Amino acid sequence: MENPTAAMLVIGDEILSGRTRDANMHHLARALTDHGIRLCEVRIVADVHAHIVEAVRALSDGYDHLFTSGGIGPTHDDITAEAVAEAMGAEIGIRDDARALLQAHYDRQGQVLNEARLRMARIPAGASLIDNPVSAAPGFSLRNVHVMAGVPTIFEAMLAGLLPTLTGGAPVLSQSLRIERGEGDIAASLGALAAAHPEVSIGSYPFQRDGVHGSNVVVRSQDGAAVDRVIGELSSLFPEAGR
Amino acid sequence: MENPTAAMLVIGDEILSGRTRDANMHHLARALTDHGIRLCEVRIVADVHAHIVEAVRALSDGYDHLFTSGGIGPTHDDITAEAVAEAMGAEIGIRDDARALLQAHYDRQGQVLNEARLRMARIPAGASLIDNPVSAAPGFSLRNVHVMAGVPTIFEAMLAGLLPTLTGGAPVLSQSLRIERGEGDIAASLGALAAAHPEVSIGSYPFQRDGVHGSNVVVRSQDGAAVDRVIGELSSLFPEAGR
Repeated sequence: MENPTAAMLVIGDEILSGRTRDANMHHLARALTDHGIRLCEVRIVADVHAHIVEAVRALSDGYDHLFTSGGIGPTHDDITAEAVAEAMGAEIGIRDDARALLQAHYDRQGQVLNEARLRMARIPAGASLIDNPVSAAPGFSLRNVHVMAGVPTIFEAMLAGLLPTLTGGAPVLSQSLRIERGEGDIAASLGALAAAHPEVSIGSYPFQRDGVHGSNVVVRSQDGAAVDRVIGELSSLFPEAGR
Repeated sequence: MENPTAAMLVIGDEILSGRTRDANMHHLARALTDHGIRLCEVRIVADVHAHIVEAVRALSDGYDHLFTSGGIGPTHDDITAEAVAEAMGAEIGIRDDARALLQAHYDRQGQVLNEARLRMARIPAGASLIDNPVSAAPGFSLRNVHVMAGVPTIFEAMLAGLLPTLTGGAPVLSQSLRIERGEGDIAASLGALAAAHPEVSIGSYPFQRDGVHGSNVVVRSQDGAAVDRVIGELSSLFPEAGR
């Protein structure tokens, strides 16, 4: 059976400007692979309402799941929840369940639930909340769209709670061989091997570092025995290669 | 005048599977910001012909420039050049100018220009070549689409040659303040400041690290004096903040 598919949408001016380096994408990619959900596409857009709406529509239509990161805090540039609601045709307003979570959190901290913080209780109708064990303000799942925070510690905590609730498939297994030869030297053999073994996918990822160039050849499949078999053939073809 | 806009398309199974972490996006984002080109969107898609074609069409239509990374090597999974040619309605075949570059390179290395390597001379009609000082196999620009290698050292070298040929605008200048207070405490002041100063953009990027939480507030504009002015106001509002 085919594994469920997924896309990610990162909302982040600060990544597009080069000020910060995205960390959530890499974390999500690894977690989904382990869970047997196939991440097929990632988009990064700026904090612009129309762009978020358009991307949410396209990606929630195109894949089984859409995970978003960023833009759900209390400041003026946090516009993800509204954009997701509009994209999905849902009403949005302050919800009592989210407000109660925030109220309890700020009471514990001796801080006031002011108007800005209350914005984080704006949750689309019909959405279920995603727990935020770090700072209380919840994410939410609206149909197949899972809206999470951009701060990596919070994103990871939210995902850890969410992922076990989603049906995954068999994890995709992979093994790789590091071959210190130019891709041009190994391409013909790799192409023939890939054609002979449609039950696996074979990728060649060249590197060039400290004067050494070569390629990491990665064999992937949900069928571990198939991966073993093809890696065995590869090792015979390139006996000098290292794991 | 508005700066030119750009998108990036990363072709990379290995990033979507979580095996590797993308480096080219961050490099491109910084380089474009310095050059006065605004990176507005990034997409990452798998090595699937139809997905690359669709993304190239959408992004080359939507922005002044599209930069791609990955999938132009000699192996069976390198399918970017064909997909870009199809997306842009151009013929593709082995071009004499690209073949001559490769022939000279492999002659120098005492290696043979075999069939696999010759695939790297497949360049769409009408495209201009992008110099590859690292390993000779060129990238290319086809109208507003700039196709470059995925290996970071090569991507960076290609971009260094390409970027001076593209018209940029005034670089976007930015300054930031680190404020160790919850976003909920500063959101009202920030929102008012942003509304009062439409000549700059103000972003709030929360962090949570080692028990400290707060926000980096970034003020951006092509007008350096405006950035100075708003950062000055911010510093008065939050005298405890650090640069």
